[in-house]
Amino acid sequence: MTRAARTFASDNCAGIHPLVLAAISEANVGHAPSYGADPVTSEATELFRQHFGADAEVFFTFNGTGANVVGLQSLLRPFEAVICAESAHINVDECGAPERFLGSKLITVPTLNGKLTPELVDAAVTGVGDEHHVQPRVVSITQSTEVGTCYTVAEVTALAQRIHQLNMWLHVDGARLSNAAAHLGVGLGAFGSSSGVDVLSYGATKNGAMGAEAVVSFRPDAHSSLRFIRKQSMQLASKMRFVAAQFKALLSDELWRHNAAHANEMAGRLAAGVAEIPGVSIAYPIEANGVFAALPVAVTEQLQHEYPFYVWDPPSGVVRWMTSFDTTEQDVDDFVVLIAELMAE
Amino acid sequence: MTRAARTFASDNCAGIHPLVLAAISEANVGHAPSYGADPVTSEATELFRQHFGADAEVFFTFNGTGANVVGLQSLLRPFEAVICAESAHINVDECGAPERFLGSKLITVPTLNGKLTPELVDAAVTGVGDEHHVQPRVVSITQSTEVGTCYTVAEVTALAQRIHQLNMWLHVDGARLSNAAAHLGVGLGAFGSSSGVDVLSYGATKNGAMGAEAVVSFRPDAHSSLRFIRKQSMQLASKMRFVAAQFKALLSDELWRHNAAHANEMAGRLAAGVAEIPGVSIAYPIEANGVFAALPVAVTEQLQHEYPFYVWDPPSGVVRWMTSFDTTEQDVDDFVVLIAELMAE
Amino acid sequence: MTRAARTFASDNCAGIHPLVLAAISEANVGHAPSYGADPVTSEATELFRQHFGADAEVFFTFNGTGANVVGLQSLLRPFEAVICAESAHINVDECGAPERFLGSKLITVPTLNGKLTPELVDAAVTGVGDEHHVQPRVVSITQSTEVGTCYTVAEVTALAQRIHQLNMWLHVDGARLSNAAAHLGVGLGAFGSSSGVDVLSYGATKNGAMGAEAVVSFRPDAHSSLRFIRKQSMQLASKMRFVAAQFKALLSDELWRHNAAHANEMAGRLAAGVAEIPGVSIAYPIEANGVFAALPVAVTEQLQHEYPFYVWDPPSGVVRWMTSFDTTEQDVDDFVVLIAELMAE
Amino acid sequence: MTRAARTFASDNCAGIHPLVLAAISEANVGHAPSYGADPVTSEATELFRQHFGADAEVFFTFNGTGANVVGLQSLLRPFEAVICAESAHINVDECGAPERFLGSKLITVPTLNGKLTPELVDAAVTGVGDEHHVQPRVVSITQSTEVGTCYTVAEVTALAQRIHQLNMWLHVDGARLSNAAAHLGVGLGAFGSSSGVDVLSYGATKNGAMGAEAVVSFRPDAHSSLRFIRKQSMQLASKMRFVAAQFKALLSDELWRHNAAHANEMAGRLAAGVAEIPGVSIAYPIEANGVFAALPVAVTEQLQHEYPFYVWDPPSGVVRWMTSFDTTEQDVDDFVVLIAELMAE
Repeated sequence: MTRAARTFASDNCAGIHPLVLAAISEANVGHAPSYGADPVTSEATELFRQHFGADAEVFFTFNGTGANVVGLQSLLRPFEAVICAESAHINVDECGAPERFLGSKLITVPTLNGKLTPELVDAAVTGVGDEHHVQPRVVSITQSTEVGTCYTVAEVTALAQRIHQLNMWLHVDGARLSNAAAHLGVGLGAFGSSSGVDVLSYGATKNGAMGAEAVVSFRPDAHSSLRFIRKQSMQLASKMRFVAAQFKALLSDELWRHNAAHANEMAGRLAAGVAEIPGVSIAYPIEANGVFAALPVAVTEQLQHEYPFYVWDPPSGVVRWMTSFDTTEQDVDDFVVLIAELMAE
Repeated sequence: MTRAARTFASDNCAGIHPLVLAAISEANVGHAPSYGADPVTSEATELFRQHFGADAEVFFTFNGTGANVVGLQSLLRPFEAVICAESAHINVDECGAPERFLGSKLITVPTLNGKLTPELVDAAVTGVGDEHHVQPRVVSITQSTEVGTCYTVAEVTALAQRIHQLNMWLHVDGARLSNAAAHLGVGLGAFGSSSGVDVLSYGATKNGAMGAEAVVSFRPDAHSSLRFIRKQSMQLASKMRFVAAQFKALLSDELWRHNAAHANEMAGRLAAGVAEIPGVSIAYPIEANGVFAALPVAVTEQLQHEYPFYVWDPPSGVVRWMTSFDTTEQDVDDFVVLIAELMAE
Repeated sequence: MTRAARTFASDNCAGIHPLVLAAISEANVGHAPSYGADPVTSEATELFRQHFGADAEVFFTFNGTGANVVGLQSLLRPFEAVICAESAHINVDECGAPERFLGSKLITVPTLNGKLTPELVDAAVTGVGDEHHVQPRVVSITQSTEVGTCYTVAEVTALAQRIHQLNMWLHVDGARLSNAAAHLGVGLGAFGSSSGVDVLSYGATKNGAMGAEAVVSFRPDAHSSLRFIRKQSMQLASKMRFVAAQFKALLSDELWRHNAAHANEMAGRLAAGVAEIPGVSIAYPIEANGVFAALPVAVTEQLQHEYPFYVWDPPSGVVRWMTSFDTTEQDVDDFVVLIAELMAE
Repeated sequence: MTRAARTFASDNCAGIHPLVLAAISEANVGHAPSYGADPVTSEATELFRQHFGADAEVFFTFNGTGANVVGLQSLLRPFEAVICAESAHINVDECGAPERFLGSKLITVPTLNGKLTPELVDAAVTGVGDEHHVQPRVVSITQSTEVGTCYTVAEVTALAQRIHQLNMWLHVDGARLSNAAAHLGVGLGAFGSSSGVDVLSYGATKNGAMGAEAVVSFRPDAHSSLRFIRKQSMQLASKMRFVAAQFKALLSDELWRHNAAHANEMAGRLAAGVAEIPGVSIAYPIEANGVFAALPVAVTEQLQHEYPFYVWDPPSGVVRWMTSFDTTEQDVDDFVVLIAELMAE
């Protein structure tokens, strides 16, 4: 299907960053208590607290869907609902896991660029107090969004304030939080309790890990139940030290930022390259590590013979290209050249 | 808590076998399609078919609880029930994940040695056709059992025949299937469709993997739904090649058997050692990699200062010691010496 | 709040039709087997078969939400989804019971008049075969719709054909099926297997019963599980004969049609009356027993001091008025006069 | 199957008490707000407060399984467990509805006479704080029990004290609470907050209603969620006034006690009658309205040709006979004569 070593299909097509693999290997010494009672997990947890603040409680999970479902479970009961963007991963890409395991309805909101606003939230809050209607309790946003845009810290703070006024909680799906923080030039902790976030899914997998995600909770009253929620949700690793080691690598020496900034930069380079090709238009602002562009269908199909990637919105012909920590300038330039050639035909 | 590099607390306290880690590293080249559409996953799947037969369909998961819940979901609806031993991991150690995610009741049966028999199953099948009662649909057995015993191939076959006569399915929790196969001197495929198994959880984590389990299904009519069940159950890895690589290592060159046989041998050595200590009695036949022994409570408590391990049955004082692929003869002998010393005091 | 004996708030504000109450009383003789093994249930079931055909299997439930959830459960698994109109009762008015108990996502479709079409269904069927997406398996329509419109038999048939081509099932929420059949001048059985319906919720409560709904299934392979689904879903009545008696009354001597036709007629009279009042506009075709009209907010609020009713769509000022089997011409005329007076002020 | 107008199969084979039916009829005047906002519901609720205390909050449901599941939902989360007797209705007779809708495991305890004790509860509380185990949170008892015995007020109080010390809640399945209160000569409120009950299912159906049960909650912090739990659990009646009317009849002028005391008296008469027949032995103390007796299997089978009833425990030959508000002395005496005749053959 493809001749390229590195493609633009998804940032989860990339492998393991060498320092992450080294950390796994380094943790592989002798026996260690299972299920998180080991020193590596303690060290990784301590690193989370350095980044996210002393009030952060951390629960490692296997994957992003697991982190989202576990975190949301700590915030609502089945008759309560989650407000999210129509494009949200929890709505579109998790095979209904949230409805299945939360028992809750998702109230979906169309957005211009993947981002909710206080006004959009206000409009989605209906039927409060009416037993025939689900009760909105959580707003879930994705940072960076599924279309590569980022909420500023001010935007998250404003959303959180409005949400808390409404007696609701703010959940952040941070599968690509690193990319957002790198774009904005802030620390990861900017999206913790200081901006009003209640529970966060922090994703390492797309940032260079082999497979490691975390629920970061800033609600002390939820912490005691989260251990049980995680286990019952089939997200508790027995050999936890090897999940923890991945975080240890990424959260040390700003590796998370290095990887994310590089991916973002490659997306910028790709966007700049294709923007100069007549007939190609960029669909969303280039902020994190995704480029969404409208192409003629025929060109898309030819291009997919060489490079796998997803058509994001078939009616408009918008496609999605993702960059990752290991994307090279050469990868980008080769890809741009090929697009230009196909567009010229 | 402990001065020992290797303990007897659990086989999941061991790390990653070097060949498994090497396989992960070897798979870490360039980009690969995510979610299992990569060559390493194809190769690992092919290895499963070599071991379990051409009719085996394989779905990798993150952990054993996930494999059990996913596999069982493919066999029953919420008003149908699972018959299992009272000591079964799905009943005791999964924080109610089966009830929560299957919606089904577990019908639990006391056993002498962790093993169900056709007679015990017959006695547990009640209320068939009565809408007030859950309908037994699946029997789940653990191989090797939670108390270290093994079902022979003949026993599994006889159980499966009776279960199928009752219009039910046979599920095997094979978190330690390798230890049973090694003990019995048979291949892994002895616990597939040839003996009447319908769905199997095959565990690699306790056998030297970092974290890799698989649902192996022998029911063609369930295969199409299993992909969706796995994803909805939050058990689909994005960078699947690194889960697959672990199976590739263990299923090649009989590494699974080498690791399991060694662990079993160490359990045998440990049992033989403590059997000679006056006042210690062995609670169950030594077949796989667990030793269950009755000790005075005071000795147990002193011993736990040096070595962490679980008290299996507080009323009788029976404790559990597990061996693993990396347990050494010296580890065992040191432990036996310490027990003998404490017993002599 | 209101001085009127009969209002237009909902057809479930009406009481029990005298013939229904008489049937309950008539069934109240001596003991009878519970849970449906009694002669009255047999007779009512036979009446269902006379109306809906010999292939109909009937399961009485307590309420409409129960009937919908039980019927839908017989058609899909949790990773499969239900396509319905955005305005559907299952989406808006059941407090998330479908998501909670089916575990399934509802895929909602905006409609002009509460009615789905084959084209709308086609557009909503996406992601088939992709394990990241829920799999559309059922289309649920409401007959008559929540806005008082009716699907013709031809429309239902065309929908069913398309749905079956897509390997999906057709579910009908018939809480007001009687009103639709009366409007169209057809029998209840027109919305059974002859038009391609797979499972139907048949509502008697709004048609003059005290509280009686039924799941009518036309899929023989689902019948054996429906008994268990109903019981597990907490919808099995112990003194079933008194639920059955209500159906017996309504399905005998065309009482169902008499009641529904009268309610429809009163809605027509109300619509005709208000249509002549300047400033009032009718929002949807008047077909069943609901009138939706746009009023100035100030008039709505004054009117609600005398008559309780719901504002259907706050932004547009559209309100909902429902008529029932016991609404009189005088009730309608008094109401029209009051509206005219208030509009004239 | 039977020639008798009234049998001993179950107290739910009886019909509607005439005063209950009259109350339904009396409530059938004009329109009334639906879903409980009507005057009859207010009056019935007020009667509950007179019986159970001003701190009682009441939520009517359709049936006993519904009341149990709704009430329990207000007390626990899915990773928390319910301790109950092995013979409990929630464990044996609800087709797994608790597991399905609570998501929780039932921890079942064998009992001598259907009754839990503080000691039995203590022994069932294990694994607290261990994330691999479900966390015991609720103890559910049945009053009167499934085998016709009654907890004294002192026994309930002692249980509640122990349970609350353990940071757990006490749930009472009071499907036959009236029979217990009548036996003990106390008011219904003896099983409310004064004895430490947290949530109660109060059953009217077996006491002469057509179909009416209630969740009575004594936990103010749970009241706001119970409205939503009931609706989402498909247990909210639209024409609520007719459910409420049934309670109004039974809770007025001690009709509940009259009906229950009569049924109890008939059970006593039946037990006294059969106790004199050689070869018949009574299995449990006769306290409420059930008689459990051991008969030869051949006699049971002959007897069932004339009178339907359940074999309670096939191995021991114990059968169950229930009396109800409408059982006559003649009914009992005829039955005793027949048993004596069959035993004499």
